[in-house]
Amino acid sequence: MTDFHSDRFVIIGVGLIGGSVAAALRAAGAVQHVVGVGRGRANMERAMALGVVDEVSDQAGEAVRGADAVLLAVPVRQNAAVLAQIADQIPRGCLLTDAGSTKGDFVADLRRLLPGHLARCVPAHPIAGAELHGVEAAHAALFRDKNVVITPLPENPPDILRRAEALWETCGARLTRMTPAAHDKIFSAVSHLPHVLAYALVHALALRPDRTELFRFAGAGFRDFTRIAGSSPEMWRDIVLANRDALLDDLAAYRGQIDQLTAMIEGGDGKALETLFATARDARGQWLRTGK
Amino acid sequence: MTDFHSDRFVIIGVGLIGGSVAAALRAAGAVQHVVGVGRGRANMERAMALGVVDEVSDQAGEAVRGADAVLLAVPVRQNAAVLAQIADQIPRGCLLTDAGSTKGDFVADLRRLLPGHLARCVPAHPIAGAELHGVEAAHAALFRDKNVVITPLPENPPDILRRAEALWETCGARLTRMTPAAHDKIFSAVSHLPHVLAYALVHALALRPDRTELFRFAGAGFRDFTRIAGSSPEMWRDIVLANRDALLDDLAAYRGQIDQLTAMIEGGDGKALETLFATARDARGQWLRTGK
Repeated sequence: MTDFHSDRFVIIGVGLIGGSVAAALRAAGAVQHVVGVGRGRANMERAMALGVVDEVSDQAGEAVRGADAVLLAVPVRQNAAVLAQIADQIPRGCLLTDAGSTKGDFVADLRRLLPGHLARCVPAHPIAGAELHGVEAAHAALFRDKNVVITPLPENPPDILRRAEALWETCGARLTRMTPAAHDKIFSAVSHLPHVLAYALVHALALRPDRTELFRFAGAGFRDFTRIAGSSPEMWRDIVLANRDALLDDLAAYRGQIDQLTAMIEGGDGKALETLFATARDARGQWLRTGK
Repeated sequence: MTDFHSDRFVIIGVGLIGGSVAAALRAAGAVQHVVGVGRGRANMERAMALGVVDEVSDQAGEAVRGADAVLLAVPVRQNAAVLAQIADQIPRGCLLTDAGSTKGDFVADLRRLLPGHLARCVPAHPIAGAELHGVEAAHAALFRDKNVVITPLPENPPDILRRAEALWETCGARLTRMTPAAHDKIFSAVSHLPHVLAYALVHALALRPDRTELFRFAGAGFRDFTRIAGSSPEMWRDIVLANRDALLDDLAAYRGQIDQLTAMIEGGDGKALETLFATARDARGQWLRTGK
């Protein structure tokens, strides 16, 4: 593992993710001076008070001057606006990485807005911390033993890629490299689709005239099935639209599953139902035991 | 609350539910002699060793002779066979209640197989204990403050209905009366449909060629969303088929939700997506805060 070091580390978006990266790098002695960029004054004051950042700014363009590494950790819909702000300011040698949940759209933004800087842009997706929000929840161990997916650009030279990976490894993460398209396909299936399905179920019940009776008898199974429907509507609107192609494929395939199940129930085909349920139960059991 | 008492209480099916009813009634001093009926010899020996039952039998017909109350707590697919076995043996004054997850089919079985005993048959569905199995997991507090739905028959006289409700209240349960059809509609929406949807998602992923990669990156949200897909395939095959009419309605409505979401994503309608997600999140939040 290459050592990561930054003399001036700029975090654009100081929430759970940005704050935890700062805390982890600081705990490892890997950063000299940390600048936090954000608009919310109260939040930035908390970040200072917590010692997560050494300096705050509300101007991303100014803040990145003199930086040798930048982490972009704003809500993904703000990525393009921030990239436009820093495009003319980011120093030639400065590393840029991010923490967004979708990668194809971010790569497209980079190509459009930072075409001269692609060699030093290394997209990343840390798989951690979806439930809590804000810099108050940030902590140095958030990424320890968590997966971080790196989706390198063809333009990344090996030393830049190694430096970006060292940044995430210094936070304690386990890294996997894949293409942006492979990333988006996987996370559509295991994360984006389940979120949409959970939202759809609660939405369907919420609109029914007998909703009070329904919710009154909803139990622990329903609570867990719909937990992800408690997630941020704005964030998931953005993810769903950013990953629309992969997600539309998965929604169509899932609709096929519904049709198949409907036919089995209509036909009273207990054997087929039991086989489908058992295949699912066994696959899930294997996943819980082996992680795959 | 009427006191419940039984001199000879017969439990047909001594698993988590049957065993917990026996333990609760015994702890309340409400039962004199408890007979457990079951085929699995090892299980029945455990039930005796645990003090859950005083006597065991593998013949339901013989066991119910002399009983003044019977609880039917076998897997629901065995209900009809057990009812046929006890039809000619159950004493005229004996109360019969059950613990099945679907009620319309059970009422139909009662009308077909115990037509002369309907006045003393009071169907019930305790909402508890779906995750554990077997008499080892049984305990007297399983039903404390849990919902039990009673779906009375028009034939039940008030005193019989009160005695059945006293049985469940003595176990610590909170009771709600509704029709079998209302019961099946509610539990289709909040329990049976989510189970089918969770099985369908895991099944879809398990059949994909990239399943290893998918499961490798599945996280806590996926784990909770699919927890109910770890349930017994045999049990859920039976529930799904027993409640097929209500469930087919709900599957069709859910398919409509999928189509609506697909159209929003295809059309890039971020506003509609955010509204749908926010409606769901708010309804779930209200449910968590208020229970309805």
